[in-house]
Amino acid sequence: MLCFLIGLIVSLLGFFNNLAIENIAGKKFVITSDMMLARKYMAAFLVFTSSNLGLTLFASLITALIAPEAAGSGIPEVKAYLNGVDAPAIFSLRTLFVKIVGSICAVSASLNIGKAGPMVHTGACIAAIMGQGGSKKYGLTWKWLRVFKNDRDRRDLVTCGSAAGITAAFRAPVGGVLFALEEMASWWRSALLWRAYFTTAVVAIVLRALIDVCLRGKCGLFGKGGLIMYDVTSANISYHLKDVPPILVLGIIGGILGSIYNFLLNKVLRLYNFINEKGIGYKIILACCISIFTSCFLFGLPWLASCRSCPSGASEPCPTIGRSGNYKKFQCPPGYYNDLASLFFNTNDDAIKNLFSKDTDSEFHRLSMLIFFVTCFFLSIFSYGIVVPAGLFVPVIVTGAAYGRFVGMLIGSHSNLNHGLFAVLGSASLLGGSMRMTVSLCVIILELTNNLLLLPLIMLVLLISKSVADAFNGNIYDLIMKSKGFPYLETHAEPYMRQLTVGDVVTGPLRIFNGIEKVGNIVHVLKTTEHNGFPVVDEPPLSESPVLFGLILRAHLITLLKKKAFLRTPTPIGPDAFVQFSSDDFAKKGLGNGDKIEDIELSEEEMEMFMDLHPFTNGTPYTVVETMSLAKALILFREVGLRHLLVVPKVPGGVPVVGILTRHDFMPEHILHLHPSSARGRWKRLRFQFPSLGRLIREL
Amino acid sequence: MLCFLIGLIVSLLGFFNNLAIENIAGKKFVITSDMMLARKYMAAFLVFTSSNLGLTLFASLITALIAPEAAGSGIPEVKAYLNGVDAPAIFSLRTLFVKIVGSICAVSASLNIGKAGPMVHTGACIAAIMGQGGSKKYGLTWKWLRVFKNDRDRRDLVTCGSAAGITAAFRAPVGGVLFALEEMASWWRSALLWRAYFTTAVVAIVLRALIDVCLRGKCGLFGKGGLIMYDVTSANISYHLKDVPPILVLGIIGGILGSIYNFLLNKVLRLYNFINEKGIGYKIILACCISIFTSCFLFGLPWLASCRSCPSGASEPCPTIGRSGNYKKFQCPPGYYNDLASLFFNTNDDAIKNLFSKDTDSEFHRLSMLIFFVTCFFLSIFSYGIVVPAGLFVPVIVTGAAYGRFVGMLIGSHSNLNHGLFAVLGSASLLGGSMRMTVSLCVIILELTNNLLLLPLIMLVLLISKSVADAFNGNIYDLIMKSKGFPYLETHAEPYMRQLTVGDVVTGPLRIFNGIEKVGNIVHVLKTTEHNGFPVVDEPPLSESPVLFGLILRAHLITLLKKKAFLRTPTPIGPDAFVQFSSDDFAKKGLGNGDKIEDIELSEEEMEMFMDLHPFTNGTPYTVVETMSLAKALILFREVGLRHLLVVPKVPGGVPVVGILTRHDFMPEHILHLHPSSARGRWKRLRFQFPSLGRLIREL
Repeated sequence: MLCFLIGLIVSLLGFFNNLAIENIAGKKFVITSDMMLARKYMAAFLVFTSSNLGLTLFASLITALIAPEAAGSGIPEVKAYLNGVDAPAIFSLRTLFVKIVGSICAVSASLNIGKAGPMVHTGACIAAIMGQGGSKKYGLTWKWLRVFKNDRDRRDLVTCGSAAGITAAFRAPVGGVLFALEEMASWWRSALLWRAYFTTAVVAIVLRALIDVCLRGKCGLFGKGGLIMYDVTSANISYHLKDVPPILVLGIIGGILGSIYNFLLNKVLRLYNFINEKGIGYKIILACCISIFTSCFLFGLPWLASCRSCPSGASEPCPTIGRSGNYKKFQCPPGYYNDLASLFFNTNDDAIKNLFSKDTDSEFHRLSMLIFFVTCFFLSIFSYGIVVPAGLFVPVIVTGAAYGRFVGMLIGSHSNLNHGLFAVLGSASLLGGSMRMTVSLCVIILELTNNLLLLPLIMLVLLISKSVADAFNGNIYDLIMKSKGFPYLETHAEPYMRQLTVGDVVTGPLRIFNGIEKVGNIVHVLKTTEHNGFPVVDEPPLSESPVLFGLILRAHLITLLKKKAFLRTPTPIGPDAFVQFSSDDFAKKGLGNGDKIEDIELSEEEMEMFMDLHPFTNGTPYTVVETMSLAKALILFREVGLRHLLVVPKVPGGVPVVGILTRHDFMPEHILHLHPSSARGRWKRLRFQFPSLGRLIREL
Repeated sequence: MLCFLIGLIVSLLGFFNNLAIENIAGKKFVITSDMMLARKYMAAFLVFTSSNLGLTLFASLITALIAPEAAGSGIPEVKAYLNGVDAPAIFSLRTLFVKIVGSICAVSASLNIGKAGPMVHTGACIAAIMGQGGSKKYGLTWKWLRVFKNDRDRRDLVTCGSAAGITAAFRAPVGGVLFALEEMASWWRSALLWRAYFTTAVVAIVLRALIDVCLRGKCGLFGKGGLIMYDVTSANISYHLKDVPPILVLGIIGGILGSIYNFLLNKVLRLYNFINEKGIGYKIILACCISIFTSCFLFGLPWLASCRSCPSGASEPCPTIGRSGNYKKFQCPPGYYNDLASLFFNTNDDAIKNLFSKDTDSEFHRLSMLIFFVTCFFLSIFSYGIVVPAGLFVPVIVTGAAYGRFVGMLIGSHSNLNHGLFAVLGSASLLGGSMRMTVSLCVIILELTNNLLLLPLIMLVLLISKSVADAFNGNIYDLIMKSKGFPYLETHAEPYMRQLTVGDVVTGPLRIFNGIEKVGNIVHVLKTTEHNGFPVVDEPPLSESPVLFGLILRAHLITLLKKKAFLRTPTPIGPDAFVQFSSDDFAKKGLGNGDKIEDIELSEEEMEMFMDLHPFTNGTPYTVVETMSLAKALILFREVGLRHLLVVPKVPGGVPVVGILTRHDFMPEHILHLHPSSARGRWKRLRFQFPSLGRLIREL
């Protein structure tokens, strides 16, 4: 039911998003094209640049001022959340609003950024907000939705939401499910697969119906495409063994380019972080600079290309006067077209359509294609980090398509494949080299282009480019996550973790509560530490020897303190302990909505009273013995999805609990800090480094 | 690397399989058709029936005598193996051989069975055999392959193998990966996804190349189809809202039919089990009876249909003289064709092609379609249980296509969709109703038919039919697994498990070994119990109080006994304990290849000696406290993939270990047997029963 609602809302939003972008950007291009037709080149440039600047300014202003969390793609944040990292405010209503409006403005501003990432974040936001029953802050709450007050259900909803986001962005329902599975989710169950599938089916059906409405011409400048965004069907694609070597080369170079892309993007992000840390003003100036640069490039570079005469018998009007099409007139005389303008002076979607189109092998000049590829490559790297909602999918697809088409041109008539298909394969190789997904990218490309016969080649290209790129560096989203400092828990244990035991990494003074504890002690410990879970130990006279009773959470302690469930004497309270609580009190709070210990005021007298923690303690926490290898403990921690893991001694008799492991204790940085010697024995991935490039960037 | 080999072998086998079937069955049909042309009807019938009978007899003989494990689909066995159930001999070389040859013969014998299930089992077999380094029994071992001596790697390989199987059967690489993910695998990691994808990519590329070879006409009667088996592309499929209600009805009825299918199949399997238990002779007679019945139906029923005159302007020759085609001549005069014969007197693949074909809306008579549907439905139910390798996919697709086409005929011109598309949707609905998969079925159908525009409708139909069918009973493979008695561990815990603690289900006399144990005791315990894991406890004088040291496996104890690692006095042996062992001794043995305790002969003197178990014991087994809820323990057991889980007491001081949990302790039957009262509080799935039908079957 909830999945249905999520699917419905995401598909409506996605459709609205597309509609708004196509209309705003389309309007802009129509006005400037008209001016160009009237040979008012300067005026056209001014209108183009200023409208882009205005849109970017608006997008960056709302992002910087209202919800800085909405900047960037959002996929790393959602991925980290699904891994168990609760970053504050990533799913608030503010973020959602800024993400939608900002993404529309930024994409309409002809920045070289995508809308898929923001759509994923939007979908995840909607799911999270619905999961916690609306936003309390703005009074929009639905009581009946508040049954999902636990981590697992909420995470499932967010996974479905992100699947719906991809579906809405690419009209790719199966690809959306697979994307959520392969890239986003850290835990996966077959029930979740079924729910995600249901959600994306709803999105697909709603989108199909809405497009039906639009085809009747009620959506303004919205394109004429059906459910397939970039259709490259051709009845008879034949390729033989001799076509395979060029494809292999395409895949290998694509993988290298993809890893360079990731590397450069990471460096640029660091550079931008320095700038952005200086203040909101700097952030906005940076965004505006990028916007002006982009406008200059988009408007200026087409002048480099010479006018080409229109082919006779082209299937479309040439030169194109309207908004999109393969043959842009730009500054050329009638009967001629500018091939670079057809790529640059267009929305990204239309540029992809042009690049993927078949029977247009002679349309573009080699040099034009090279210029377009290089410009896109660097523009997309420099555009991502600015303070607007920005995706990475579409820029990578455009860049890859230009690259593939360029390779296709070089190979020329030695291949049976037309240049449009080379462009598709080029996109696949760059996507594989940058995002490192396999099945989901394959299906997304398939659903984007509707060409099943190309499937074996696409699989081949993805395999090669991913393998090649993996030799250099990691997945782009993982790099971004790492640079943002999220403690992402990997599935596999590093080899040196097998050499260490759990006891080796347990650190710090352990704070233990007695089964019946003084209020003052609890308040003191909560105020002086930041731990979220505390072991509860029964000591004499409650038991004969110290016995581990269980684990109590900070949130529950705060609830107890708030409700003042105190006792005058240290005696157990018995079965009526829960009388003054509702189940809602112990439910998981929304992100960042929990109470803080500082907000609770207690009198001196209350501080001297006692609390019986037994009824509120998890009496059967998962435990491991201190001699267990770290790798084995990590498997338990990760597979069961824990937040706290108690470490008990091997031989009973002494202290009943040795320590407590949290996510941070499993981070490689933490372990290598404690045991630097194990780094030496560390099995390293065979990875080439980019040292000279890195130095180059640093010198910049 | 190994995945590449698996992909290569599976694709070659799959291709060989197809080739053999098409040639044997094609030859048969060509001969009988020629006889029919010459009006020798009786001779044709005899040749048809006897060749079918001979092929079936051969298939059932080799299955019954050489490898009874190869009977049936194999998917339930592989699924159970991937869940951790090691059924004996399911992956032996014998099974593999019988599966391949038997499947070719049985499918060629025009039995209404499929080849997808056997292909999956074949793929899994190849993977398992390669994973354990070849078959020791037949001396085919590769030393360098023997690095995969652990459960996890072997399981990963088998998953890849089953994905490759589906890919080879349906030429559906993405569908294969998803099938392995959704239906087969119980644990899933992203590395596994990547490997499975790699395997299926190899299969797809090899198949594509082989088909290229075949298209040049070197493969005998092998069909002319490309990579897409049943291509239904049509440039412009338009459907609107008014087409949705019939699709909904189609989905609902398809779900009901699917659940009836599962129910009847289950009942028939039980009936067959009674017959099959009586001996090999009965098994073979049963298989032969079914073969003769099938032949009679296939040959006899087309006589019921009247001859129809050939449409003018048909795209194929009419009547078809050769092997396959939409218009079979059968007994009709020239210029006429028999529509029922076009369906019955054909291989299943060709029947599906005919049913899915477009622009043939007037080809079949309504009554013919109904007869075909009913016959297929019951034939496939009665054919599955016989003692030959038999799949379920293809029969369900045929039956569903007939059902869908029948519905399409009833709706007639009220819909924009042609009858071929209705057939596709009908197949989807029956598959969804019977197999209960979603994403993978969706992609498999997509890859079979290459029609992306139909995707939203297919998703809708699958969703509806799965939901409807789930209200009645379970997935067909789960039903078969249950009837075979595999202890399959579900992901989710039943609600009553939350009410029970681990201590409630721990049973039986617990056998504990001392850290240094007498050989005689160990032999006695191993001979009198069937446990596979034993807790090892250090007692005074080894420690102050009894301490749980760890868990030792039966296989390791047997290795120790075999190597006679005995001590004369009960003293620890120290660090040189491993001198006489190689790591291979403690590696996981192939299925059914382990040594048995009965094979080890020890003298009286040796029985009085001691063994130090410490170095060979897993010192850090996963443990839970006895008060933990059963549901929570199940999560640990299932997610981490354990075979033994030690239960320790809440309060230390007494015995250090309370019991040991295995897979069987989590089975609902076991728990409900121990605690019948919890069945009352058991939350039951809202499921309708088929009581009257059940009684009917029992009365038969």
